[in-house]
Amino acid sequence: MTTTATTLKGQPLDRQTLDAMLRRRLFYTPAFEIYGGVAGLFDYGPPGCALQAHIVDLWRKHFILEEDMLEVDCTVLTPHEVLKTSGHVDKFADWMCKDPKNGDILRADHFVEDVLEARLKGDKEARGQKVEEEDDPKKKKKRKQKTEAVKLDDAVVQEYEEILAKIDNYNGEELGELIKKYDLRNPATGLQPSPPVSFNLMFQTAIGPSSNLPGYMRPETAQGQFLNFAKLLDFNMQQMPFASASIGRSYRNEISPRAGLLRVREFLMAEIEHFVDPEGGKKHARFAEVENVELTLLDRHTQLSGKTDVKKMTIGDAVRNKVVDNETLGYFVARIHLFLQKIGVDMTKVRFRQHMENEMAHYAADCWDAELFTSSGWIECVGCADRSAYDLSVHAKKTGAPLIVRERLDEPRVIEEWQVEIDKKKFGPQFKKDGKTVEAALEATTQEQREKLAKQLTDNGELELEVAGVADGKVKVSKDLVKVEFRKRVENTREYVPNVIEPSFGIGRIMYSLIEHVYWNRATEDGGDEARGVLSFPPTIAPTKVLIVPLSANKQFQPFVNKISQKLRKIGISARVDASSATIGKRYSRNDELGTPLGVTIDFQTVQDSTITLRDRDSTKQVRADEDTIVSAIQSLVTGSKEWKDIAAELPAFEGQEVDVAVR
Amino acid sequence: MTTTATTLKGQPLDRQTLDAMLRRRLFYTPAFEIYGGVAGLFDYGPPGCALQAHIVDLWRKHFILEEDMLEVDCTVLTPHEVLKTSGHVDKFADWMCKDPKNGDILRADHFVEDVLEARLKGDKEARGQKVEEEDDPKKKKKRKQKTEAVKLDDAVVQEYEEILAKIDNYNGEELGELIKKYDLRNPATGLQPSPPVSFNLMFQTAIGPSSNLPGYMRPETAQGQFLNFAKLLDFNMQQMPFASASIGRSYRNEISPRAGLLRVREFLMAEIEHFVDPEGGKKHARFAEVENVELTLLDRHTQLSGKTDVKKMTIGDAVRNKVVDNETLGYFVARIHLFLQKIGVDMTKVRFRQHMENEMAHYAADCWDAELFTSSGWIECVGCADRSAYDLSVHAKKTGAPLIVRERLDEPRVIEEWQVEIDKKKFGPQFKKDGKTVEAALEATTQEQREKLAKQLTDNGELELEVAGVADGKVKVSKDLVKVEFRKRVENTREYVPNVIEPSFGIGRIMYSLIEHVYWNRATEDGGDEARGVLSFPPTIAPTKVLIVPLSANKQFQPFVNKISQKLRKIGISARVDASSATIGKRYSRNDELGTPLGVTIDFQTVQDSTITLRDRDSTKQVRADEDTIVSAIQSLVTGSKEWKDIAAELPAFEGQEVDVAVR
Repeated sequence: MTTTATTLKGQPLDRQTLDAMLRRRLFYTPAFEIYGGVAGLFDYGPPGCALQAHIVDLWRKHFILEEDMLEVDCTVLTPHEVLKTSGHVDKFADWMCKDPKNGDILRADHFVEDVLEARLKGDKEARGQKVEEEDDPKKKKKRKQKTEAVKLDDAVVQEYEEILAKIDNYNGEELGELIKKYDLRNPATGLQPSPPVSFNLMFQTAIGPSSNLPGYMRPETAQGQFLNFAKLLDFNMQQMPFASASIGRSYRNEISPRAGLLRVREFLMAEIEHFVDPEGGKKHARFAEVENVELTLLDRHTQLSGKTDVKKMTIGDAVRNKVVDNETLGYFVARIHLFLQKIGVDMTKVRFRQHMENEMAHYAADCWDAELFTSSGWIECVGCADRSAYDLSVHAKKTGAPLIVRERLDEPRVIEEWQVEIDKKKFGPQFKKDGKTVEAALEATTQEQREKLAKQLTDNGELELEVAGVADGKVKVSKDLVKVEFRKRVENTREYVPNVIEPSFGIGRIMYSLIEHVYWNRATEDGGDEARGVLSFPPTIAPTKVLIVPLSANKQFQPFVNKISQKLRKIGISARVDASSATIGKRYSRNDELGTPLGVTIDFQTVQDSTITLRDRDSTKQVRADEDTIVSAIQSLVTGSKEWKDIAAELPAFEGQEVDVAVR
Repeated sequence: MTTTATTLKGQPLDRQTLDAMLRRRLFYTPAFEIYGGVAGLFDYGPPGCALQAHIVDLWRKHFILEEDMLEVDCTVLTPHEVLKTSGHVDKFADWMCKDPKNGDILRADHFVEDVLEARLKGDKEARGQKVEEEDDPKKKKKRKQKTEAVKLDDAVVQEYEEILAKIDNYNGEELGELIKKYDLRNPATGLQPSPPVSFNLMFQTAIGPSSNLPGYMRPETAQGQFLNFAKLLDFNMQQMPFASASIGRSYRNEISPRAGLLRVREFLMAEIEHFVDPEGGKKHARFAEVENVELTLLDRHTQLSGKTDVKKMTIGDAVRNKVVDNETLGYFVARIHLFLQKIGVDMTKVRFRQHMENEMAHYAADCWDAELFTSSGWIECVGCADRSAYDLSVHAKKTGAPLIVRERLDEPRVIEEWQVEIDKKKFGPQFKKDGKTVEAALEATTQEQREKLAKQLTDNGELELEVAGVADGKVKVSKDLVKVEFRKRVENTREYVPNVIEPSFGIGRIMYSLIEHVYWNRATEDGGDEARGVLSFPPTIAPTKVLIVPLSANKQFQPFVNKISQKLRKIGISARVDASSATIGKRYSRNDELGTPLGVTIDFQTVQDSTITLRDRDSTKQVRADEDTIVSAIQSLVTGSKEWKDIAAELPAFEGQEVDVAVR
């Protein structure tokens, strides 16, 4: 596996040169730059915008249309209570500390990690050992720290290494203790930062004029989908399994975003929530279609042993061998792989990494990330998590809404169990507004709990129940309001809370990684000395498909330019005309940087016989034919039904104008 | 012009029935409903989502692709300073007052309007006059007020009418005075509300961990486009005119949103900023293509005379007669008309209304709204404003960024004028961080001002200048730092700040109005008594294009269902299968409500000869042919190249299953 980022042609990738090109060509630009900019906020210009639209379009076809998913579009504004229930208000936070002198705000875990790593590096230098660039799977981004060659005791080295291995496990207090114990100092000031405080990553606002409804900008699109579950199941005519999907922006108030498009505060997500019966092993009806897809996997066990060796394995084998837990999770992992392939990602720079136990989000039962290799290391671009029944359960418990599936059984089942019977007539008046919540809490008790509650009722004439948010959290219910008894029951239907498999895509990260994967330098390739960047996007997703260039400003060319433009527009293919006075070579170079895969030239021969030439960006080869033949060739390239080699084989080659590129 | 909303077939439109249907079919649903909902926030379910996507897609083709606009995608999060400069922090506000007893929050202008109108109505009743439903162009929504039949003095009636005519002109203090003077009371409590206070409509938040960067969620997408103007001009290789465009969400914290999808707090906008040279009459190169488009216009003069009579006029005549100010504005008004027509809006329910002077946004020089008639009256769905050079000028002045166009002149011009010459070496040290701002303020002075400043320098050895935001707003500059002299200058280039024509679309409002326009009731039409809603979307924008129904659950049908599904999916046409046990008639009824234009039935004849039937939603007529012929018919209907009457003429009619609908 590579440890240094390279271009499409294997050249060393110079991130600064690439970034400068992307900004010059307006793929993206810092937002509010004339006002000094705001960290973590970027705007997309026309090529970035078009690239994003094509990736989203392909995503919609590959996932939503292909599998009849139910697309929903929910609001970004979300009231406090929803995100309190989901756990985000309490847990969606990072620890931050502050430098007492310069006011630097530091993410505590990153700070401890950086200082300890710098010391270990210094120790190695002092011992005369080779310092290797690490390829740590959990490291999202290389942060720079100056190292000093200072030798440490062997015992200290071991302590540091143990701390680093479990850095994700420390809470704020513990991180604070580490800072004190090891006297960790901010290199910028030489001072210890303040003790870590929790910083919630959600942007807060207030909804409505009286400011009495606190809310947040959503940190993910998932919650809106969960809250609509019952309506979506109804829309799907009670058929399970099914998936909802959503494409929209989410917001995270990162403590110190610095990695360009890879860690931003406002970003486009595409998320699928696939609802599945937890019983029966989470099979997937279309698994057979993907079982032979070969994936690059980095499982939990390998990582636990401190290694990053990947295994190549078909998803069929991975599920059979229990490397990947179940068919549904495996199906989506394979579908993600196919999607990345389709948009032109370099598949030698993709791996699926299983989350470590301590690393998963508070709701996840299992999770595989699609990671793409870039100049910033391995970047998590897609998460594929089994969120179990967590979200539907907590929202149902909080609101009393029945976020469940009722399934008719072919044969009735006789069940003996502890049952709760509530006297609703008396219940309401007694508990007033809390009635529903107490009721839901009673209904949510387990068989074990019910056995104990039954005993309480017999012994004390009342039971005591923990109900979060009601009174002081404990509620007493007397026996004239509720019965808890062991009874027989015949079930004709089965009720269950579905589990959720969630493939979650960070579109911006995928876009940026893809750009690195398709980038190369033509001059270096040719042995020239001038940098000439090329972005070899597949025609299906390239921002603009065709560049139309008249040979010169001669007015004879104009009608031909208009005609070809209109023809392409009519079949929905985006083209741009460059009638500037620059040489044809310069005009093509500019569009190489924009990733435009095809070029059409109108020259004097066009005026004579109405033929035009078509140029392939990657090979710079040209063919020549009449307008309709060229338009149809363009269409087959853009829809992906043909490749350039097919066109080159079908149509006569043309070598005329390329000389112009050379003399540029 | 209609004053009561009707369905597509002229039936009276029952909004409650329609709304219930839209929610049942999950076009939209109140967001966070299981948590009690939040006013003004709605989610779109699958059909709403698909409809929105198709409208946006068509918008992108009709505007962006057709005219090579530069699409940008800017952040929603916007720092305070940007919106302070644009005027939104100070002026994007409504006046609100509060009921002292029940805490009701009222929009002050609406409150005054409602109470006075109720009194006028009561007066009419007392006089025994007929009370007509008003068709007030400025009234966005009918608000209910109980009327009492109380006769007023003639003088009072006149006073009230005068107040209502200029209700948009009052500030908060004046509205407060009206409330006191006329003793206006909240009908809910019988009390006068508190004096109006200004309430800014932007959602506020803080960016970054130290909360030191206040920001807002953008109230429009326009500002991001303006801030990127220089980069976009560069991307366009300095060619003028050009347009940028943006599709994205905006946010307005409405005081009391109540009109369903028509007044919401989070909404999708599509905005175009067309940058044009203010000299030369703002001609448009493609105006000739639209000049014969006939529009329904309600101009400012007609409204001033208290009337709402519209005029039918071609846009060519409107511009020639100066009803519409210039070609560029006129071009976009016509293009908006064509867009609305394309998506299926009932063009008899569309008018373009010119803004009154006192009604325009703080930045606008002229503005025409496309209004669509609905059950809530005339609804502003698209604004088409000439924002003049306002935005670019204020941002340039604030930041010092050159948001201008430099144009090479064919012949140099000799100009005599007052010139400012700044000694930059001394200027910086003197004014430090304010240097750029003072410099920009000096550069921005007019010829008249410069003449006076020159005199000040001569007389006093220094000049005094107003510079907002620096010191106490006044700055003194001595003659060793600046010269102001009357000189000759030869210009080879011309510099100017472009004007902006801004067509701005509220996608949600367009969607909802369109739904009302295409809605009708089949049962009423047939004389039946059961309500059977139909949404007659054109196939191009219908959420789902094809319903596939097997006649029954017979397993023989399954391979045919799969085959036709796959064929449609392959050509990108969205279809849904309904294999439920309901009758074919019920299944078609459900899809009438979803607006699915086409239905394919697989029956026993299919098993025999592989033919399938195709049903037209609106006429319920069917044709029958082999699979490939039907697929190709579907494709031509969905792309809009054919209409049903063409298909009905080409393929043999089929009358078999319709009997099933009748016996339902």
